[in-house]
Amino acid sequence: MDAEMLMNPAAMAADGCLVRGVLDRVGDKWSVHVIHLLGGSGTLRFSDLRRSIDGISQRMLTVTLRGLERDGLVTRTVYPVVPPRVDYALTPLGETLLATICDLVHWAEAHTADIDAARARYDARAEGVEAI
Amino acid sequence: MDAEMLMNPAAMAADGCLVRGVLDRVGDKWSVHVIHLLGGSGTLRFSDLRRSIDGISQRMLTVTLRGLERDGLVTRTVYPVVPPRVDYALTPLGETLLATICDLVHWAEAHTADIDAARARYDARAEGVEAI
Repeated sequence: MDAEMLMNPAAMAADGCLVRGVLDRVGDKWSVHVIHLLGGSGTLRFSDLRRSIDGISQRMLTVTLRGLERDGLVTRTVYPVVPPRVDYALTPLGETLLATICDLVHWAEAHTADIDAARARYDARAEGVEAI
Repeated sequence: MDAEMLMNPAAMAADGCLVRGVLDRVGDKWSVHVIHLLGGSGTLRFSDLRRSIDGISQRMLTVTLRGLERDGLVTRTVYPVVPPRVDYALTPLGETLLATICDLVHWAEAHTADIDAARARYDARAEGVEAI
């Protein structure tokens, strides 16, 4: 964002509108996890992804993968075998997002302790205010 | 993620668990917008943020800012003036996230057309399947 835009709230809002639809997808924690895992593995099955993403439901993973496929970030390949096999992988467009997503995950890994400490301080302060 | 972890689903799941709590915050589109705007501006008031983030409700902005403050990423400064004035700014910890967030927003800006085109193709294909 440049200085001119900061002087112009309408331009800032338009900028926000432009990217909001894309951030709906890439600024979503489940999508971040899926892209990060596919980036590290090449190809994964639904069951691999479900097992590797702590706390995701079957339905939420289905919705997340369908959204990523619709956005052109992930391919879904169905193999006509018994039992059925479905593989997911990043598209070339999805690969262009990978470095940024990895930075985000690495930042989260590196700063988990800082954030935990900040939360504890905030909650202690909030309890102190309530006790008055 | 290294090769050893990919061979070990339990380690992958533990890794996912570690960062999930942090990605709840930083992998959230509203938080991404707020951090990006504060990074470009230094300090902003609630009303500046609300005007600049297309589609955010007053309540969602309040919840987002409180979460960012609790995580130690944003400071909230209340000035005892009439009318009341409240400023928001990034903390030093929040500043360390800025480069990655800017990359994410720039990626979104650069690839909006690609994603729009992919969505149109996906929806056309889905309609074709329904018409059969």
